[in-house]
Amino acid sequence: MRATFIYGTKDIRVQDAPDPSLLADTDVIVKVSAACVCGSDLWPYRGVNQVNEPRRMGHEFIGVVTQIGSAVASLKSGDFVVAPWANSCGQCPPCRHGVQVACEHRAPWGGKDENGLPVDGAQGEFVRVPNADGTLVVVPGISDPDEELSKSLLALSDVCGTGYHAAVSARVEPGRSVVVVGDGAVGLSGVLAAKRLGATRIIAMSRHADRAELAKEFGATDIVAERGAEAAQKVRELLGGVLADSVLECVGTAESMEQALACVRPGGSLGFVGVPHGKEGLSLGLLFSKNISVAGGAASTRAYLPELLEDVLDGTINPGLVFDAVMPLEQAAEAYKAMDERKAIKVMLVP
Amino acid sequence: MRATFIYGTKDIRVQDAPDPSLLADTDVIVKVSAACVCGSDLWPYRGVNQVNEPRRMGHEFIGVVTQIGSAVASLKSGDFVVAPWANSCGQCPPCRHGVQVACEHRAPWGGKDENGLPVDGAQGEFVRVPNADGTLVVVPGISDPDEELSKSLLALSDVCGTGYHAAVSARVEPGRSVVVVGDGAVGLSGVLAAKRLGATRIIAMSRHADRAELAKEFGATDIVAERGAEAAQKVRELLGGVLADSVLECVGTAESMEQALACVRPGGSLGFVGVPHGKEGLSLGLLFSKNISVAGGAASTRAYLPELLEDVLDGTINPGLVFDAVMPLEQAAEAYKAMDERKAIKVMLVP
Repeated sequence: MRATFIYGTKDIRVQDAPDPSLLADTDVIVKVSAACVCGSDLWPYRGVNQVNEPRRMGHEFIGVVTQIGSAVASLKSGDFVVAPWANSCGQCPPCRHGVQVACEHRAPWGGKDENGLPVDGAQGEFVRVPNADGTLVVVPGISDPDEELSKSLLALSDVCGTGYHAAVSARVEPGRSVVVVGDGAVGLSGVLAAKRLGATRIIAMSRHADRAELAKEFGATDIVAERGAEAAQKVRELLGGVLADSVLECVGTAESMEQALACVRPGGSLGFVGVPHGKEGLSLGLLFSKNISVAGGAASTRAYLPELLEDVLDGTINPGLVFDAVMPLEQAAEAYKAMDERKAIKVMLVP
Repeated sequence: MRATFIYGTKDIRVQDAPDPSLLADTDVIVKVSAACVCGSDLWPYRGVNQVNEPRRMGHEFIGVVTQIGSAVASLKSGDFVVAPWANSCGQCPPCRHGVQVACEHRAPWGGKDENGLPVDGAQGEFVRVPNADGTLVVVPGISDPDEELSKSLLALSDVCGTGYHAAVSARVEPGRSVVVVGDGAVGLSGVLAAKRLGATRIIAMSRHADRAELAKEFGATDIVAERGAEAAQKVRELLGGVLADSVLECVGTAESMEQALACVRPGGSLGFVGVPHGKEGLSLGLLFSKNISVAGGAASTRAYLPELLEDVLDGTINPGLVFDAVMPLEQAAEAYKAMDERKAIKVMLVP
């Protein structure tokens, strides 16, 4: 089959790779109908995270089950499925707590499972899925979604659920005021999540007209283009003299975390989902004196998938709008480039 | 009147001070019937916080209203009141949000108000209370509480509500497992709070027989004397192979925060109320990967006072048990010494 590899900074190649086969009786094989590039894939692409040897890429995909391990109970051949960005057994204590990202048997896509056996990256034609019962979610009544539906289903794999995790972690609820830091696919999904959770005032920070436009479509009531102290001041003005009840940090840099903290009112909540880069620690003194709560982290999108899938299927939400480009898998390198240069918000790859 | 001053490390003196008078029409004067020494008073006492000039001490007190400013609406002469450790106007946005510690008009006890006028420390005979309507809580039907009730009312000023804030911040609710780090008056109050909030399993960390005994009386189901990784391992054993849902950090040192973090399960919650000393920052990477939420800080005990007062008056809780010594105000220096040497958990001072 064909699959995507990273060789080093800005060096993405689509190459031949072995077709996967069932290696455990809890596995299934999925024929990928669509995958995509994640903002976090750009960390190694940009050289921020080191690449020591060529490795498989991709952790978001949808597709059709083609082979089934003998111990798999909840799936059958031909099922159309969404795979969360982190696989999980569904049985261990963290899984039972709904924190599937901390699954004791998690096997990183593109890496190796706990038995040292290879797990495919999602940016390829087929993927061996370990712990398939715990991991995959079947899309009922769907066998071959059109492009629009495919985009929304694919968004459930990561960005939609990650934005949702930011909003839940920031304790968004009806009547709360919300600021979203980050206008990438996750930030935009955070806006959508805040709207779904009943926030009445949603301030999106963006300097890009197309992203600001989509933020508004997703429910943003205000756009702030300022940065730093000016942005916080603008938020305070918009909210009648107080800072925000809930702030979603959807980037992961030191600057974005500082920006987010600067926008939370005393007693307010920060939900963070950007993979931390460049910031050593959160100031305990600041959290203490302002009573700011901090929650979030890697999102267990598996936990949110059933309810968000329902909303996608009945047309309540359309998270797939974050995909503003579709490319064939063979053009994966161009997809990375377009996202790196912010020419695309998020690119869907079709094998 | 007589009042307590700190002059420097381990130098506490009770001296004459001017009787306070009404300086604003929102003030009242309270004749203190009991005050106490706080764990946080030990930071300057031990020289951890520098003392640049002699200053008044104490921020927890109960007593009788003796003079009333013309704009005070909710209080009358003779009312028996509890004063929270932080005064608050009750009107500004943080007060309306229930975060009275961030009140925009807060005047530190023993310091100066926003107009530069002196505010008395609580460890004295009388206190001028700014923003009395927002600050004081009347104890209905009580004019002269006995020693046992006085202890419990005085505990509501700070430690009981602070322990409660730790438990609420750590999201304690029925069925959650709880670890409490710290066996001082606040930690013990945290045990009481966890019990009140319905926790079924409450593990108190203590190496002192008397404190462990009181923890059990307050609701602790288990005592762990170990420290560090051994303590976390013990918690895991006690909870059947998983760490705690909720951990209360009630000390404020780098060690206690590390201990608390080591005891939280993935997706669990840390509530911290110890004034941070010695720890620069919380590791974002740890919070991210384990999805640990962190909340807490300086406790708005004013917010919890009405409901906790009700429980004290009907005998549901007896938070005053943390006071294991009573001394006359003139012996304030001995009270500090007893707490510093851990010969007393908490000392009540009677003018």
